[in-house]
Amino acid sequence: MVTTRHLAKKEEILEAGLELIWRNGYNGTSVKDIVDAAGIPKGSFYQYFESKEDFAKEAMNRVCTFAMTAIKPILSDPQLSPVGKIRKLYEMRIHMSADEFHYEKGCMLTNLTGEIANSNDYLRKLVAETWTRMIRPLVELVQAAIDEGEISKSHDATELAEYLENAFRGAITSALSSRSSASYYGFMKYTFESVLI
Amino acid sequence: MVTTRHLAKKEEILEAGLELIWRNGYNGTSVKDIVDAAGIPKGSFYQYFESKEDFAKEAMNRVCTFAMTAIKPILSDPQLSPVGKIRKLYEMRIHMSADEFHYEKGCMLTNLTGEIANSNDYLRKLVAETWTRMIRPLVELVQAAIDEGEISKSHDATELAEYLENAFRGAITSALSSRSSASYYGFMKYTFESVLI
Repeated sequence: MVTTRHLAKKEEILEAGLELIWRNGYNGTSVKDIVDAAGIPKGSFYQYFESKEDFAKEAMNRVCTFAMTAIKPILSDPQLSPVGKIRKLYEMRIHMSADEFHYEKGCMLTNLTGEIANSNDYLRKLVAETWTRMIRPLVELVQAAIDEGEISKSHDATELAEYLENAFRGAITSALSSRSSASYYGFMKYTFESVLI
Repeated sequence: MVTTRHLAKKEEILEAGLELIWRNGYNGTSVKDIVDAAGIPKGSFYQYFESKEDFAKEAMNRVCTFAMTAIKPILSDPQLSPVGKIRKLYEMRIHMSADEFHYEKGCMLTNLTGEIANSNDYLRKLVAETWTRMIRPLVELVQAAIDEGEISKSHDATELAEYLENAFRGAITSALSSRSSASYYGFMKYTFESVLI
C-alpha cells in the first residue's frame, strides 16, 4: 500500500541516490551504494523501485521537477524581456555550477548520455525525452523574443534553443573538467553578442 | 624487454579496449572485458599496462594521435582559407559521427569527463589536458582567420576556439542521445553565420 510514509521514504532514497549518480555516474553507483547512502537495508530498495533503471528514471524526473520549480520566478518576472529572462536563467545556472556545486556536478543528462547511450537503449531514449522536455521553457522564451522583435525573425525557436543548450552543456562539461568558469564567460559572450541577436 | 612484438600486441589491446571504453564508458568496461576483446589472458594485461587508469591514459593519447593524423590533409590544404579549413574539419567530424559511427560514439573526452570527473581526479586532469592539446590546431586556425582579416579582429582565438568546441561537443551529445544529425545542422548554421564572422 502506498502510504505517506512510503512516499516520504521513497523521496529520501531518491534524493540520496540521485546525488550519487550525479557525482559518480550510473555504473559508478550500485544499488548497495544507494541503500547505504539512504540508510535502508538492500532488500527494501525494491519496495520502492522496480530496478536501478526505474530509479534512474525517477531521479531524472526529480531533476526535471526541481529545475522547472527553480526557474519559475524568472519566467514570471514582469520586469524582464524574453532575452532578459534567458540571460537570467543562464546566470542562475552558472552561479549554481560554480558557487553551489563548485564545478563538481555536471549536467546529469549529458553525463548519463555519454555513459550509457550505447549500453542501455531504454535510458538513452529517456534521457533524450527528458532533455526535450526540459528545454521547452527556453524554446518558448526564444519564440517570444522572436515574436516581440527582440531578436531576428529569421531564427527558428526550437533550433536556436537547442543550439544554446548544446553550447551550454559543452560549457558545463568544460567547467567540470577544468574546475573553472572560463567556458561560462565564453558562452555568455557569444550567446548574447553573436547568437541571440 | 620491449620488443616489436610486444608493441604490436600492446597496440592491439589498446585498439580493442579503446573501442569498448568509447562505447560503454570507463566503469562499464572492466579489465576482463578488455582482455576478452583482445583475446589475451587476464594476467598478461599488466605486462602492457600498469593499471586500468594507465590504459585509459594511453587510449586517450591514441585518440589524440588518430585525430591529429586525420586532420592533417585539411590543415595543409593550400586551397582553403582558415575558415574554410574550420568548416571542412567540422564537416569531416559530422560525417564520421553520422556515417561511420551511426551516432554510436560520442566525444570520448566528454563522456569520460561526465562519468569520472568526481571519482577520479587523476583522469579528470588528464582529460582536461588532452582536450586543451586536441583543440590547439583549431586555436591556430582561428588566430590565422583573425590575422588574415577573415573574421573580426575583436575575437580572442583561444576563447572562440573553446566556445566552438564546447558547442560542438554539446551537439555530439545530442546526436548520441537522439541518434540524429539535427544538432549538427544547428551547430553549422550558428557557427558559420553568427559566431565565426
